[in-house]
Amino acid sequence: MRGLMMEDPLTLLPIFERVARYFPQQEIVTRRPDGTFSRTNYAAFSTRVRKLARVLADAGLAPGDRVATLLWNHAAHFEAFFAVPLAGGVLHPLNPRLHPDEIAWIARTGGDRFLIVDDTLWPTFDRFRESVPLDRVWQVPFAGHPAPACAVNYEAALNLAAADFVFPQLDERDAASMYFTSGTTGRPKGVVYSHRSLVLHGLAICLADCCGISRMDVVLPATPMFHANSWGLPHAAVIAGAKMVFPGSGATPADLLDLIEQEGVTLASGVPTIWLGVLEELRRNPSGWNFRAPVRLLVGGTAPPENLVRELDRFGLRILQAWGLTETSPLGTVSLLKPHMREWSEERQYEARSKQGYPVPLIQVRLAGAEGEAPWDGVTPGELEVRGPWVASAYYGAPESADRWTPDGWFRTGDVATIDSEGFVKIFDRTKDMIKSGGEWISSVDLENTLMAHPGVREAAVIAIHDPKWQERPLAIIVPREGARPSPEDLAALLATRFDKWQIPDGFIFVDELPRTSVGKIQKSHLREQFRDWRKDHPDPSPRK
Amino acid sequence: MRGLMMEDPLTLLPIFERVARYFPQQEIVTRRPDGTFSRTNYAAFSTRVRKLARVLADAGLAPGDRVATLLWNHAAHFEAFFAVPLAGGVLHPLNPRLHPDEIAWIARTGGDRFLIVDDTLWPTFDRFRESVPLDRVWQVPFAGHPAPACAVNYEAALNLAAADFVFPQLDERDAASMYFTSGTTGRPKGVVYSHRSLVLHGLAICLADCCGISRMDVVLPATPMFHANSWGLPHAAVIAGAKMVFPGSGATPADLLDLIEQEGVTLASGVPTIWLGVLEELRRNPSGWNFRAPVRLLVGGTAPPENLVRELDRFGLRILQAWGLTETSPLGTVSLLKPHMREWSEERQYEARSKQGYPVPLIQVRLAGAEGEAPWDGVTPGELEVRGPWVASAYYGAPESADRWTPDGWFRTGDVATIDSEGFVKIFDRTKDMIKSGGEWISSVDLENTLMAHPGVREAAVIAIHDPKWQERPLAIIVPREGARPSPEDLAALLATRFDKWQIPDGFIFVDELPRTSVGKIQKSHLREQFRDWRKDHPDPSPRK
Repeated sequence: MRGLMMEDPLTLLPIFERVARYFPQQEIVTRRPDGTFSRTNYAAFSTRVRKLARVLADAGLAPGDRVATLLWNHAAHFEAFFAVPLAGGVLHPLNPRLHPDEIAWIARTGGDRFLIVDDTLWPTFDRFRESVPLDRVWQVPFAGHPAPACAVNYEAALNLAAADFVFPQLDERDAASMYFTSGTTGRPKGVVYSHRSLVLHGLAICLADCCGISRMDVVLPATPMFHANSWGLPHAAVIAGAKMVFPGSGATPADLLDLIEQEGVTLASGVPTIWLGVLEELRRNPSGWNFRAPVRLLVGGTAPPENLVRELDRFGLRILQAWGLTETSPLGTVSLLKPHMREWSEERQYEARSKQGYPVPLIQVRLAGAEGEAPWDGVTPGELEVRGPWVASAYYGAPESADRWTPDGWFRTGDVATIDSEGFVKIFDRTKDMIKSGGEWISSVDLENTLMAHPGVREAAVIAIHDPKWQERPLAIIVPREGARPSPEDLAALLATRFDKWQIPDGFIFVDELPRTSVGKIQKSHLREQFRDWRKDHPDPSPRK
Repeated sequence: MRGLMMEDPLTLLPIFERVARYFPQQEIVTRRPDGTFSRTNYAAFSTRVRKLARVLADAGLAPGDRVATLLWNHAAHFEAFFAVPLAGGVLHPLNPRLHPDEIAWIARTGGDRFLIVDDTLWPTFDRFRESVPLDRVWQVPFAGHPAPACAVNYEAALNLAAADFVFPQLDERDAASMYFTSGTTGRPKGVVYSHRSLVLHGLAICLADCCGISRMDVVLPATPMFHANSWGLPHAAVIAGAKMVFPGSGATPADLLDLIEQEGVTLASGVPTIWLGVLEELRRNPSGWNFRAPVRLLVGGTAPPENLVRELDRFGLRILQAWGLTETSPLGTVSLLKPHMREWSEERQYEARSKQGYPVPLIQVRLAGAEGEAPWDGVTPGELEVRGPWVASAYYGAPESADRWTPDGWFRTGDVATIDSEGFVKIFDRTKDMIKSGGEWISSVDLENTLMAHPGVREAAVIAIHDPKWQERPLAIIVPREGARPSPEDLAALLATRFDKWQIPDGFIFVDELPRTSVGKIQKSHLREQFRDWRKDHPDPSPRK
């Protein structure tokens, strides 16, 4: 027996139509390259999205055609997030921080037919455009530069277009957008989101028990929109009718703090590195900013060190930790205290908040241990597996990657984690970043987080180096805080308070900065390569466990 | 091109599994008939739901079989809300307040095969059980009575059952539950919810911009669970992991206030009548209760008078008005102020809050006027039409009702409304309750709300009576407040401040109580019948407009 309910598909159309109808005056603010602001609202956004759809249709966009973007975080990118899928196309944001050859490979592999590019990114595009066959290119005058002859000025095209475009009827399982993973090893792989998955993921973000994004929020996506579905924030903001503040490109920590203060931001997203920079800035100038409302910081990518959580709390910036991957849209788990935890000590609450939390509704996780499912005891590690309606079921055109899914259809995340009896996931490490010393596993993440609690340490990365006797040994690469110079002995002593002797790195190397992937993650593969020949010059630590 | 995301269906299974796993200790409290409490939690709930599914399967439940309930609001009913659909059956709550012949007709029309009935409702069941062929009946010992020979004791059956039931794989469009409308005219009609519609509706209720139900909430469904999908609260509470407080049956306003105070309730649902009673109680005993947290009152069914909203605010009970019907699961619109309205005067804010609000995400509304779609000007009335993924597309086995849907698939609600430029819906009247006097429409709802602002009026109903000259004229039926005796002249004078003379009722009749439908709505059809022969004994009001 079937239900007798309407078959209205879960596409972006009803949420797009609703925001213009009920929240026309809510603002969309963009910080331009010169630091000035452009301001629009959802009424204008709605018209421009229809015009962009008309422009794409006139250019010959066929259902499923990929429209790539090479754009920073601004209102025009936001427009493309809706116009492309609503017109029946597939949005494909490209990452301008990758090597031009890699961008080209991704664009070709994704099958991109059209491109929208920032004027400020034209030089990047110029380095690979010969190797990607594109039917048409629109250039956004983000910094006010004129379009080259081989491109169409985005604003001019919109000015000429009619706003009467009627969006086609779509199936909720139609592709809406495509992102390539920014794996630290191996070729990037394409993840294809459907309208259905974007709508459900957007609703999940707006749940009171997730990010609780509401019409009263002012949302600042400080993570690049070309990364991991822009964390779903464009869709969530449109669902809620929230004001959007786009930081453009190259915003410094002080710029972000200015934006938060001046625009009344209540929720900002970013990887821990961004907030480490913000914290440094706040330390330098503790009374420099006054926030109108409490600010939630949605943090993912890697786990924030516990002391970052604590210190930002003091400034009224409350970190909400989430875990996810491009393959999970990305929202998988959120670290929200449960009712009974309100009675826990502050210490224990911070400990829980520094874990990655438990799955949002409709997402399921489990741990694949050495022998079947690992117990939820908070100590037994296993590979985290995940499933749900906004989790990828395959990579685009990559049948050789089928082993990333279990025979019963769960996605193997490549993250090694523990789950405690409350169901809180704690990411132990990436499988490939684990260090196996003398047959025992050492978590680089645990060592890094403890090192970063040292007042003289700004950032730390622990990698495995080859060891003839123990197979692998940990080596710590440290970025000291400005003016600080912690000694290896200090750091080893700090670690000794929480780790066994055999777990303590063989060496501590001080550097000015860490190599990063294009989305700001520490590039451990690069560090492993750089320190491949490093050898310790002191005796083995012993006794071993 | 299709998305490459997992096809995990939107069924109740993942949300059911999640609540037991992550919120096992959250309480489920039931007020028993004798005023004592029974307490369980989601861990026990999970086991009992599996056991109930096993009991149903052992009784021969086949996919799509209807399992009726004749139960008050308590934990066993909550169990059936999940066990029946998860086992592949269709939950069909029956309304014990209807005439036994009507209950029997609904059970036969719904095709009910099994029944779960409260011991305290056995006498009701006994009056119609001969006329409904049921394969098995379980009796819940809600008041501790033994089961009659022809029924199985619900608790005994669960005690004997294994908790190892494996739920079948379901399609998200499979029927999950069925409710008959409680129309004030005509035969009830069956609405069949799917797993998909229940999950989406439950998520919508948990959105920050709807009811925002979270794990920190304590939810009290004061509306009967056999009415309009229990307003979706059981599903929303399970999605969020919220504590549930069930009032059982026959809870007085003082009982409800006790429950709110003692159990820390933060969200309660109910029709305005319930909260009118609660307000009377608070007036009698203004310092009788202290609430731990702010309490949201989700109010629907009919519009609460503005002064009810104002007065409850003063006691820390904040009315959140929603509009919906059994056919809309029921959540359609919610009256939430928009960001710019925070700057409005208190007066204007209350005026907005006394409207029914704007649609929640994924729901769309429009107004069918005399000539096509009516403008959103706040004054032009039209019939409200609605669509969305949790709106009914047909009634069960009632092809003759196909005209309740427009040719383009919108549901005709039968509610006459205006929509203002902000998109706020204001229900003007039910189409059948409108009064047509001298060719002009008069809204009974507007007159009633103004009358209820009079300090001596507890409730008011305005109906149409036949008039030889004007076709119809309004007549007001008044329930005075205890000890008060407002005069017809007072009331007419009050109305004259807001209405034209021709809109003022021809008479004011004072009664002790108003007839109600089984779900607490004022039964205007009954009043129209009762006062059919009433004639005014004073001259025509004039001049007319």
